[in-house]
Amino acid sequence: MPKVSEAHFAQRRKQILQAAQSVFSSKGFEPATMQDIVNEAGMSRGGVYQYFSSTEEMMRALLEDNNMEFEKFIHSLIEKHTSMWNAVQDYLEALAHEAGTPFSIAVYEYFVTGWRNEERKTYLRNRYLKGQSIFLRLFQEGVRRGEFSPQQPIEAITRFFINTSDGIALEAALLGHEAVGAATQIDALKLYLKAALDI
Amino acid sequence: MPKVSEAHFAQRRKQILQAAQSVFSSKGFEPATMQDIVNEAGMSRGGVYQYFSSTEEMMRALLEDNNMEFEKFIHSLIEKHTSMWNAVQDYLEALAHEAGTPFSIAVYEYFVTGWRNEERKTYLRNRYLKGQSIFLRLFQEGVRRGEFSPQQPIEAITRFFINTSDGIALEAALLGHEAVGAATQIDALKLYLKAALDI
Repeated sequence: MPKVSEAHFAQRRKQILQAAQSVFSSKGFEPATMQDIVNEAGMSRGGVYQYFSSTEEMMRALLEDNNMEFEKFIHSLIEKHTSMWNAVQDYLEALAHEAGTPFSIAVYEYFVTGWRNEERKTYLRNRYLKGQSIFLRLFQEGVRRGEFSPQQPIEAITRFFINTSDGIALEAALLGHEAVGAATQIDALKLYLKAALDI
Repeated sequence: MPKVSEAHFAQRRKQILQAAQSVFSSKGFEPATMQDIVNEAGMSRGGVYQYFSSTEEMMRALLEDNNMEFEKFIHSLIEKHTSMWNAVQDYLEALAHEAGTPFSIAVYEYFVTGWRNEERKTYLRNRYLKGQSIFLRLFQEGVRRGEFSPQQPIEAITRFFINTSDGIALEAALLGHEAVGAATQIDALKLYLKAALDI
């Protein structure tokens, strides 16, 4: 493919995914139709279908893009900080800002309705394990640098970090930041990590 | 109403709610129809509609019944134990067994799809606050007995306990107990509580 086509392809794909994210955010995942996204993208139906044939494919493409950004972000935190505890705190800061966006609720909906579909369930499990391995690096780096002394298996700490972040983000999304007190919840998570990593 | 009718009414209501719980557990909340529940209950359509006019009403009735059981359970833990830390551990034991049942996934689905509906959102927020106040008693009782010395506002600890339990239960439901390592997650939550309550 000539360069100009590649750039065009990438730009179109991005345009469609932005439309999909916007529709998922306003309508939710399951109620969103391909036609909604065609309308939102301002492209022809045939044009959109050249790239994606279902909302499921679009959601996965969005999640893959998110995952790549997440991996880069964690990597940049490891590079940037001398103290891995500061890196963790930076991450928690970012988490507090993102929790409860309309798109994150659509993602939870995609997760929670996924158990009915064995194939999606397998996908979700792999995604979870992938996310876990990315986080694990952050904690392992802290151990390597002699900063963290895990009081539990480091995999268990990593999972707890993921599960609880999701729990907090989900409740904040559903009930509002004030009801859940998202900021105090991040403090609580720090308290756990200090105990678990012996900081 | 004469006594016999009351008993009959309660028995019928229970029969319908058991059918609803079974249908929600196998199909999920949103795909479940009133007709599915009529079929499962083995009653006439008119008979079921005398009690409930929507799956939403049925889900709320099930949640209210659950809430009453939950309140009784917490109360019984407070009565039964001298040490509130033992009461908390008993609760966590029960949690580990319940996490990830098909009905609990349907409940999460009901929660996660609820943000689209302002009225349901208000209901969910009230339910959360109610649950929080029930838990709070357990921790307050520990403080009153001189056993717990909260290192954070006790409301924040209570919320963290709820949010993280939900996060763990949700991931276990979606990904399976082994993937999430539910047992080690309960240990992690204990580690947090020990630090937060200075035990």
